[in-house]
Amino acid sequence: MDRHELIKKYAGVRRTTESLCAPLETEDFVMQTDDDVSPPNWHLGHTTWFFERVILHQFTPNYQPHNDAFYFVFNSYYESFGPRNLRTRRGALSRPTVREVYEYRSAIDQAMGDLLETCDNDQFATLAPLVELGLNHEQQHEELLMMDIKHILASNPLRPAYRQPKAGASEADQSRPFAPPHFIEFEGGIREIGANDDGFSYDNERPRHRVLLEDFALMDRLVTNGEFLEFIKDGGYRNPLLWLSDGWNTVQTRGWNAPLYWEEKAGQWYEMTLTGLQPLNLSEPVCHVSYYEADAYARWAGKRLPLEGEWERVALVQETTNCAGNFLEDDNLHPIADAQAGGPRSDVVRQLFGDVWEWTGSAYLAYPGYRQDKGPLGEYNGKFMSNQMVLRGGCCVTPRDHIRTTYRNFFQCDKRWPFTGFRLAAGR
Amino acid sequence: MDRHELIKKYAGVRRTTESLCAPLETEDFVMQTDDDVSPPNWHLGHTTWFFERVILHQFTPNYQPHNDAFYFVFNSYYESFGPRNLRTRRGALSRPTVREVYEYRSAIDQAMGDLLETCDNDQFATLAPLVELGLNHEQQHEELLMMDIKHILASNPLRPAYRQPKAGASEADQSRPFAPPHFIEFEGGIREIGANDDGFSYDNERPRHRVLLEDFALMDRLVTNGEFLEFIKDGGYRNPLLWLSDGWNTVQTRGWNAPLYWEEKAGQWYEMTLTGLQPLNLSEPVCHVSYYEADAYARWAGKRLPLEGEWERVALVQETTNCAGNFLEDDNLHPIADAQAGGPRSDVVRQLFGDVWEWTGSAYLAYPGYRQDKGPLGEYNGKFMSNQMVLRGGCCVTPRDHIRTTYRNFFQCDKRWPFTGFRLAAGR
Amino acid sequence: MDRHELIKKYAGVRRTTESLCAPLETEDFVMQTDDDVSPPNWHLGHTTWFFERVILHQFTPNYQPHNDAFYFVFNSYYESFGPRNLRTRRGALSRPTVREVYEYRSAIDQAMGDLLETCDNDQFATLAPLVELGLNHEQQHEELLMMDIKHILASNPLRPAYRQPKAGASEADQSRPFAPPHFIEFEGGIREIGANDDGFSYDNERPRHRVLLEDFALMDRLVTNGEFLEFIKDGGYRNPLLWLSDGWNTVQTRGWNAPLYWEEKAGQWYEMTLTGLQPLNLSEPVCHVSYYEADAYARWAGKRLPLEGEWERVALVQETTNCAGNFLEDDNLHPIADAQAGGPRSDVVRQLFGDVWEWTGSAYLAYPGYRQDKGPLGEYNGKFMSNQMVLRGGCCVTPRDHIRTTYRNFFQCDKRWPFTGFRLAAGR
Amino acid sequence: MDRHELIKKYAGVRRTTESLCAPLETEDFVMQTDDDVSPPNWHLGHTTWFFERVILHQFTPNYQPHNDAFYFVFNSYYESFGPRNLRTRRGALSRPTVREVYEYRSAIDQAMGDLLETCDNDQFATLAPLVELGLNHEQQHEELLMMDIKHILASNPLRPAYRQPKAGASEADQSRPFAPPHFIEFEGGIREIGANDDGFSYDNERPRHRVLLEDFALMDRLVTNGEFLEFIKDGGYRNPLLWLSDGWNTVQTRGWNAPLYWEEKAGQWYEMTLTGLQPLNLSEPVCHVSYYEADAYARWAGKRLPLEGEWERVALVQETTNCAGNFLEDDNLHPIADAQAGGPRSDVVRQLFGDVWEWTGSAYLAYPGYRQDKGPLGEYNGKFMSNQMVLRGGCCVTPRDHIRTTYRNFFQCDKRWPFTGFRLAAGR
Repeated sequence: MDRHELIKKYAGVRRTTESLCAPLETEDFVMQTDDDVSPPNWHLGHTTWFFERVILHQFTPNYQPHNDAFYFVFNSYYESFGPRNLRTRRGALSRPTVREVYEYRSAIDQAMGDLLETCDNDQFATLAPLVELGLNHEQQHEELLMMDIKHILASNPLRPAYRQPKAGASEADQSRPFAPPHFIEFEGGIREIGANDDGFSYDNERPRHRVLLEDFALMDRLVTNGEFLEFIKDGGYRNPLLWLSDGWNTVQTRGWNAPLYWEEKAGQWYEMTLTGLQPLNLSEPVCHVSYYEADAYARWAGKRLPLEGEWERVALVQETTNCAGNFLEDDNLHPIADAQAGGPRSDVVRQLFGDVWEWTGSAYLAYPGYRQDKGPLGEYNGKFMSNQMVLRGGCCVTPRDHIRTTYRNFFQCDKRWPFTGFRLAAGR
Repeated sequence: MDRHELIKKYAGVRRTTESLCAPLETEDFVMQTDDDVSPPNWHLGHTTWFFERVILHQFTPNYQPHNDAFYFVFNSYYESFGPRNLRTRRGALSRPTVREVYEYRSAIDQAMGDLLETCDNDQFATLAPLVELGLNHEQQHEELLMMDIKHILASNPLRPAYRQPKAGASEADQSRPFAPPHFIEFEGGIREIGANDDGFSYDNERPRHRVLLEDFALMDRLVTNGEFLEFIKDGGYRNPLLWLSDGWNTVQTRGWNAPLYWEEKAGQWYEMTLTGLQPLNLSEPVCHVSYYEADAYARWAGKRLPLEGEWERVALVQETTNCAGNFLEDDNLHPIADAQAGGPRSDVVRQLFGDVWEWTGSAYLAYPGYRQDKGPLGEYNGKFMSNQMVLRGGCCVTPRDHIRTTYRNFFQCDKRWPFTGFRLAAGR
Repeated sequence: MDRHELIKKYAGVRRTTESLCAPLETEDFVMQTDDDVSPPNWHLGHTTWFFERVILHQFTPNYQPHNDAFYFVFNSYYESFGPRNLRTRRGALSRPTVREVYEYRSAIDQAMGDLLETCDNDQFATLAPLVELGLNHEQQHEELLMMDIKHILASNPLRPAYRQPKAGASEADQSRPFAPPHFIEFEGGIREIGANDDGFSYDNERPRHRVLLEDFALMDRLVTNGEFLEFIKDGGYRNPLLWLSDGWNTVQTRGWNAPLYWEEKAGQWYEMTLTGLQPLNLSEPVCHVSYYEADAYARWAGKRLPLEGEWERVALVQETTNCAGNFLEDDNLHPIADAQAGGPRSDVVRQLFGDVWEWTGSAYLAYPGYRQDKGPLGEYNGKFMSNQMVLRGGCCVTPRDHIRTTYRNFFQCDKRWPFTGFRLAAGR
Repeated sequence: MDRHELIKKYAGVRRTTESLCAPLETEDFVMQTDDDVSPPNWHLGHTTWFFERVILHQFTPNYQPHNDAFYFVFNSYYESFGPRNLRTRRGALSRPTVREVYEYRSAIDQAMGDLLETCDNDQFATLAPLVELGLNHEQQHEELLMMDIKHILASNPLRPAYRQPKAGASEADQSRPFAPPHFIEFEGGIREIGANDDGFSYDNERPRHRVLLEDFALMDRLVTNGEFLEFIKDGGYRNPLLWLSDGWNTVQTRGWNAPLYWEEKAGQWYEMTLTGLQPLNLSEPVCHVSYYEADAYARWAGKRLPLEGEWERVALVQETTNCAGNFLEDDNLHPIADAQAGGPRSDVVRQLFGDVWEWTGSAYLAYPGYRQDKGPLGEYNGKFMSNQMVLRGGCCVTPRDHIRTTYRNFFQCDKRWPFTGFRLAAGR
């Protein structure tokens, strides 16, 4: 990316983050409704801290921090950058206020603009990858923002909506039949997956390397709410034999009986969404399920979850240009039904990108030959390589140009507040 | 109180509550920095709910709630009034917003004004005691507001001040000597304590009844920061033999080594106050100590805490007109040094009212002949009569006309976020 | 007590402790089925440690401990005697073995015997009170042993009995009517309670002091299982308005719906006892209830729990010789029905001693003029004076000569594994 | 295995289990010193229950359980076999007694013997695989027994030894130099790992399948205590940058600063072993470390942990006959130093089998084409496939004929009470 493009991209990403917060009330900005959730105000500050602490602090001679305390308050988990506010205490921060954080953003944007425009070419060459990393970091937080905002609003007994449904959005048609899934077959063999050094990628996507795949079949679309409801009606949440041991323990201790945000009233299922409580649309992809629920459903269905190598190969095979799908820019803020469902059978695997992050059956571990990034940014991905599973493809609140075919997201098996769903796979 | 007075008092109390919140940022209103703390916005709503739910709901024909959900959101602990939001989830409420809660206050004030002005005399006679209870309830919450605001600000790494120190407030003089305390002797015998039916009182202060006191001596002023510092320097927090077993366990598990809000930097002690972090003033009463700390100090000093009957007798004997002291209206928002310390010895017990709530050695239990109030308001005091100790005299954030000689406050032994201190007593 | 008597009493108490353990299997000796429970083997060792650590250690020149590690393992909570094994880890002690602990007992008994027989009269005068304290301590542990053994066996899915029912024990007659209770009236006034310096007493019973009682009435017998069952059938465990706030919280979090050890099968209530699972006998005193349950029952019945002063005055008035009742020596190991129930009305308050410890409405706090014992034994009672309530009268597993009219037992409000019951009182 | 061999093997395995318990005191049998630990008596009963519940219950007409309650008490985690005693309450079982469990073993052995000798050939063909599974199951529990016994004894303040050191065992020589490790190189490619259908294997080892390995190098021996001590001395436990995020959190919350069972006294390191507390032998393999510690050490050393496929390939390549190593039958009950350390450089990878289970960098997940066993025994392995890592090679308390090259053991990343160690690997 050349200097002009980078400056433009910087402005665009920063603007998007703020526009996502536009519908919020000041009070929403400081909520932490769960240990996993961060307040929107904290996201706004932390993404700014990243540019200040990683770039300005290092490249501006005699740099004076905007506010010393922000180094403590807005550090997330970087041990290399010193002490920090406890993660579980982010919701105890009424200061800096929202206004002060916006002023902070503005001041750092000014300084970053100055630096990017005035630095010499050598310095720019050093800076540019860090800026690009910072922008990718902020895009990740754009998605986290939307996940967290949804949790904040859905936790509120008044059930506030983030915004009204889009004009023309079709009503949920609960009686509409949806076609059964097809399993499209793929040949195994030695394949290459992972990122090479062209373009931006995180260290955990690298290096590009060979994997051995057996023949497999992949479901042509995502599992739907209607299908998941069958699992529920068949007693799926009450039958321990369908669950991993850790999963069954989680079901019991948390009293799960449906995906997060679902609720039943008078025999009818509803779902809390960013446009408020809505009747459950049976054709839409099931969302806000944990790995445990995805795995239990797969066992119930006599199938399994795909490996990340299988997913990536299919994505590579099918992709010619870009990762098309229902992303943040489409402004649905919700997964949408497969457009081809009920249509003629096709050999195309659909909904690979956008809609929901797809749980895979692969543990989040280092690729062969993995090298952690040097310096503090090495803490970005590598230290989370235990007790998490890989998810692929992005979701309806992921910025479109943030996703890649090689992108590896990861969450613990019990997480449900991301926009997580799944499709099934089958063996040879 | 006649109708005119009551309407005036209503307006005054309601106005005071709002004025206490005036220095806050919107973000401060929704913080719950500890399970004991409630967000200011919740206090504003809950005190309003009390008038709506207890009075308007009952006395207005065909009453339509301002917002049905508020009945759920703003009920504190009244089982009789149905389900309610979890206490520990008050900090997860970004809605209703602060503006909406102020609108709620305004609407209920309007409706209360209409009711009080238009009801007939019989109805007024029924209403008036409930309104008076509601106003006392709101005054209690004014104090809770200030305790909670202090905790919210003190928990913030930026250490914001609620307001600037008053002009003319003397600086802390850490070297100023303070006179040793005197123990003033009182004769025992059968005495009467508790409230009779003149004027407002809570059910837990009644009935007026006889107690038998032995001869005793009461410290002429409150224990000071300087004295408590001696206890610390003598290893008070490290010697298990000075502590109740529950207290020692608390010291160990929470890592206590000084009162709440104290901190040591470079050999100098500071204290977080509503005017920010200040050097510790040795002559001021020690504040924000638990019953366990008060009891340990008393054991260390070879004395004991006073019984509530002893305290009330001394207050009765000395009081001729009113409960004079450093209260909310004095706008210190902090305990102040005994004006007579260092002066000629006197036989007057000072600082009985205001400054800090004084821990007594009496458990919070029913007086002989206690009758819980009828109806839902019976839940106000009676159900808390276990595992708490009585405190007396009000503090620097108690509204002056809320306190009485017979007033019984109560907290669990480990609580430190109220403005709590103590004085010593000695036996015959 | 003269030297001969003391030596004889020593032997007797020590023998009783061991005889209580005779029916146990080796495996039972090392169980800790709850944090409150101590393994029988630990009781056997700890009571022995008391004599070794408090007496032999101090009075035997150049004393060599039986085993150094026992000083750590068998110290309960005496901070003055140094570090100790965690209370919650007593169930992790398979060593010393039961045999080794019996050897320990034997060795210490030998040394104590030698000391008591050979010391000169001056030394005996110093020793005797400590020995008497040690014996009272061991008698307390005899009761704890039986409580803990009951918990250990009742926790076992095989439901083992400690021993067979006594021959001739009548079967539970569930249909037998029991007479309604009488409330016998007593005149108030200034009365004396507490222990003077004649004979053995704990420091918490002293000094003898005046109390002021109002006129009151006391139930002539204990509340029965049948009466408590009425409370249950009336929804007592489901109505929050009957409960203290702490109590209701306990009911909810622990899922209480009946006294400890009760269970319902096919519409019939049973009770786990030391003779195994037995049909509930409706005429027997209700047992294994917490303070919260006793208090809720009293509120339901429109009465209250007695004050400890009231209880002690009645006991003093009625007692002419000794504290008659159903004690350990009677070998029922279970409360028994009031013999006079259904008989002609009498003015005698029955079942004051033995059967069940009676919850009072008095907090466990220091009497006026209380002085904690000097030295390490000061830790015996005084440091527990917070968050506990007083119980009176002993129970069916208390050694008869351990109890006194002035005896103050104490437990936290939620404890149910002691043999705890209650009777009601009424005001003037 | 023919009928005669199976009967003989049955007798041998069952005898071994009992002989491992021979040195224990009765009290040791019922200890649960940690939630992960099961009491030896429970192991004795549970392994017997397996034969009764899985085989006798099904194959004996009109089978009457030895004791109905044992079905509840001795079920571990088989949901298909109905309700069961809570895992964390195994230490609350004093009944059945040790004697009763031995009687249970004897009765079931008798019944199994009868069944195996008298059944017809068809039935034998059905039974034999289940018996073989039961014997493998019992062998796993033999190892668990030794792990648990070590924990039980090491938790005891008296530090009892399981038995005396073997005569002739050399004393720890802390000054003896040990040669630096060699990394032996292996060529990558497509290889086969996993079990085929010849001989016994667990479902999680199957099917035999292809894996793609890159070129790699494997350390010729295990990491030693001496090497791990260097990591400690270099501040390994205090540097967050060396740790996985979950690992660092574990280090902090549990206060880890050395492997389990290590302790430092006066500058000298000791290790609790089955022969009591011993000076740390620097040449022995480090043992009782978690995955987190192994991973942190590898990062510190600039290497990584091997993949399970790499480990298995090396084992296959090197093995000609059997899995030689220091196993249970060698009766060291402790890992031993590499015999060739300090000798001439060799190209043989040593200590692959026995001594310590080796942590790999592979998550415990299904092999491609995995099929869970049918029926209740499907719960044996499959449901644990989340949040665990694979370990390979067996350890010094594994029965020799229980191990296989394809054997996959698994534990959570924080477990340290198994005999766990590791070796390093390096990439291409």
